[in-house]
Amino acid sequence: MLMRKVLTFLSDFGSDSPYPAAMKAGAAGLTEARFIDINHQVRPQNVREGAFLLWSVAPYFPPGTVHCAVVDPGVGTGRAALIITSGGQHLVGPDNGLLLPAAHRLGRPTVYQIAPRQAGLSPGQTFDGRDLFAPVAARLSAGAQPEQLAQLTGHWQELDFGQGSLSLAEGWLKGQVIYVDHFGNLVTNISAELVGRLLSYGERLRWQIEPAGQEIRLAFQPSFGFVPPGEPLAYLGSAGTLELALREGNAAERFQVTAGAEIRLRQAR
Amino acid sequence: MLMRKVLTFLSDFGSDSPYPAAMKAGAAGLTEARFIDINHQVRPQNVREGAFLLWSVAPYFPPGTVHCAVVDPGVGTGRAALIITSGGQHLVGPDNGLLLPAAHRLGRPTVYQIAPRQAGLSPGQTFDGRDLFAPVAARLSAGAQPEQLAQLTGHWQELDFGQGSLSLAEGWLKGQVIYVDHFGNLVTNISAELVGRLLSYGERLRWQIEPAGQEIRLAFQPSFGFVPPGEPLAYLGSAGTLELALREGNAAERFQVTAGAEIRLRQAR
Amino acid sequence: MLMRKVLTFLSDFGSDSPYPAAMKAGAAGLTEARFIDINHQVRPQNVREGAFLLWSVAPYFPPGTVHCAVVDPGVGTGRAALIITSGGQHLVGPDNGLLLPAAHRLGRPTVYQIAPRQAGLSPGQTFDGRDLFAPVAARLSAGAQPEQLAQLTGHWQELDFGQGSLSLAEGWLKGQVIYVDHFGNLVTNISAELVGRLLSYGERLRWQIEPAGQEIRLAFQPSFGFVPPGEPLAYLGSAGTLELALREGNAAERFQVTAGAEIRLRQAR
Repeated sequence: MLMRKVLTFLSDFGSDSPYPAAMKAGAAGLTEARFIDINHQVRPQNVREGAFLLWSVAPYFPPGTVHCAVVDPGVGTGRAALIITSGGQHLVGPDNGLLLPAAHRLGRPTVYQIAPRQAGLSPGQTFDGRDLFAPVAARLSAGAQPEQLAQLTGHWQELDFGQGSLSLAEGWLKGQVIYVDHFGNLVTNISAELVGRLLSYGERLRWQIEPAGQEIRLAFQPSFGFVPPGEPLAYLGSAGTLELALREGNAAERFQVTAGAEIRLRQAR
Repeated sequence: MLMRKVLTFLSDFGSDSPYPAAMKAGAAGLTEARFIDINHQVRPQNVREGAFLLWSVAPYFPPGTVHCAVVDPGVGTGRAALIITSGGQHLVGPDNGLLLPAAHRLGRPTVYQIAPRQAGLSPGQTFDGRDLFAPVAARLSAGAQPEQLAQLTGHWQELDFGQGSLSLAEGWLKGQVIYVDHFGNLVTNISAELVGRLLSYGERLRWQIEPAGQEIRLAFQPSFGFVPPGEPLAYLGSAGTLELALREGNAAERFQVTAGAEIRLRQAR
Repeated sequence: MLMRKVLTFLSDFGSDSPYPAAMKAGAAGLTEARFIDINHQVRPQNVREGAFLLWSVAPYFPPGTVHCAVVDPGVGTGRAALIITSGGQHLVGPDNGLLLPAAHRLGRPTVYQIAPRQAGLSPGQTFDGRDLFAPVAARLSAGAQPEQLAQLTGHWQELDFGQGSLSLAEGWLKGQVIYVDHFGNLVTNISAELVGRLLSYGERLRWQIEPAGQEIRLAFQPSFGFVPPGEPLAYLGSAGTLELALREGNAAERFQVTAGAEIRLRQAR
């Protein structure tokens, strides 16, 4: 059975604004794709948060899905607009790193720069989400090829949560905190697959956080209920990677960690 | 005209999280059904609130609708996963009472326990909303039968807002407060149909609340505008049942009532 | 390619309520149209805010779109229910001005009063959003004609953000503040087209606000980044009209302006 394609929307416009609907208005006449909102509550202009949200859900969408993502502090400054194709999905949005972590997680990214005239769009519009990104994403979901709307490029703003910063040496697994959620939980880039090969539930771990060099001792557990209130634990989060948290506490505050921090992890004797 | 089926989603994941989208990602490749969000703002792990929201809207959906509901404090503890079929609709979610009030309101529930292997799902996944409940709900909406995905069971966690606790004796109509909304209005299980047979607008009522035994005198009115500010009234709420409220006030606080309280009601002389 | 029609929903029910879903439940069995939420976070009973949101996005929807909008302080008082057809789109909602600004912006409005019996609806229902407006909107999106559901009328509650209050005389362009957004930015009814004919980026302006008679000197700029923090600017907003704001400040508070204020604008020497 051939299903309708999916077109997702992500932005920092706010659920109390009319602009997510305006983006969909700009797409509705161009495609029969199913529209799914990822989220419009990204903190304003927080590219890393938007990148994390996209990265956390993109792998679970069906082949052919197109993601239209707009967190765009550089709007109006001449920053480029991109189509990225990776792992059978397309991502459309501004050239500021927003799309890259998801693109790396999906596969091997091919990057195109959108040429508004080539895409049949009139320049000088006032709202790129509605007038540029949504129509381009809609056309891709309706079967257009990236080459019809954009030109291959070798230059873009990079942002990588992924395998590039992971390593295993002398018994230490190195990774990165890619996101701190609203509860202060630390989301890492260490995949469930890697964890499954290296760790068992109940196992004790040493967890070092750079640059401070703090070391935390904790257990890898299936869920919060396995440790007492106030205690740290490591667990597999809903994004499909290892997370570090305090039960009923804020790990980011307690350990003074922000997104981007390096972490090192090994089994405790 | 045969319309597309409807697949609804309800959770406590929060509108600022990517997880409602992740559930839909898990369903989008398996069904052409129309997706409708009931709500993802249920207070965390508040099963009764989720049950109320589902109960309040389920009767208005067309036959064949499938509801995928996830408010799941017991995730990871081995609680069962259910499909319930009632009144021509299906409900899918954890076995904690969440689905039962809606199921009782829709008709005569038949309950199945999901066997993940039978449903073609790999065990050991990390996010049941995306990996278990959404795919099962999607398959039902695409025409699968509950028997293909689950096994009939006679055991489940019960929760009933419904007719079971209603009675009419010696002129007193007994019912239950099933939900206290954000304004402190008290939603009861006394249906509009029953009210229509017993009461007329403008009629004065005696309303007793157990266990405190308080008695409130108020009028049954079409809407808030019919009583002065600060005064109590009874009216038919949007959920299709009788509600008790204070105009411009908080009835739950004033009368110290919580969900589950028993109420008794009769006409005043 | 003939696309599915679009049916939008706008209300003040709140994203944490089940009532937006209840409206869609009332429509889902009657139409195959694509459902798009404009917004359900309109401040309670704030008709002007709802009217602004609808006005700001309606022009970007494809021909044949139906908008179902419910911000309805007069519910239960016998206010009429309307279908308005304008510029190839339909608007459905209460007769309180909510639909009119969008209708005027779309074209030349034709107004019908819904006759519930004629529309095949049973009177005495308790929730007009679900039981009246959504089914009527759904039928229009499925191809019904307004005349089948309603009767032409010459009487309705007017609200106009539009061309009616615009004038250009003695070098002064007169207009109106139609909305103050959450940041205190002042959205006017002066269209991008008019601005494009009269102003160039970088140009200095004199901006007078009635009734206070204040005069502000500012520049017309492409975006906030072109002025220092704390400074005022005029720019084309996402709604497609001229806006006045303070960079990193609240213009409505500073200049004590509310929606409805008249403004006058001219080039500074």
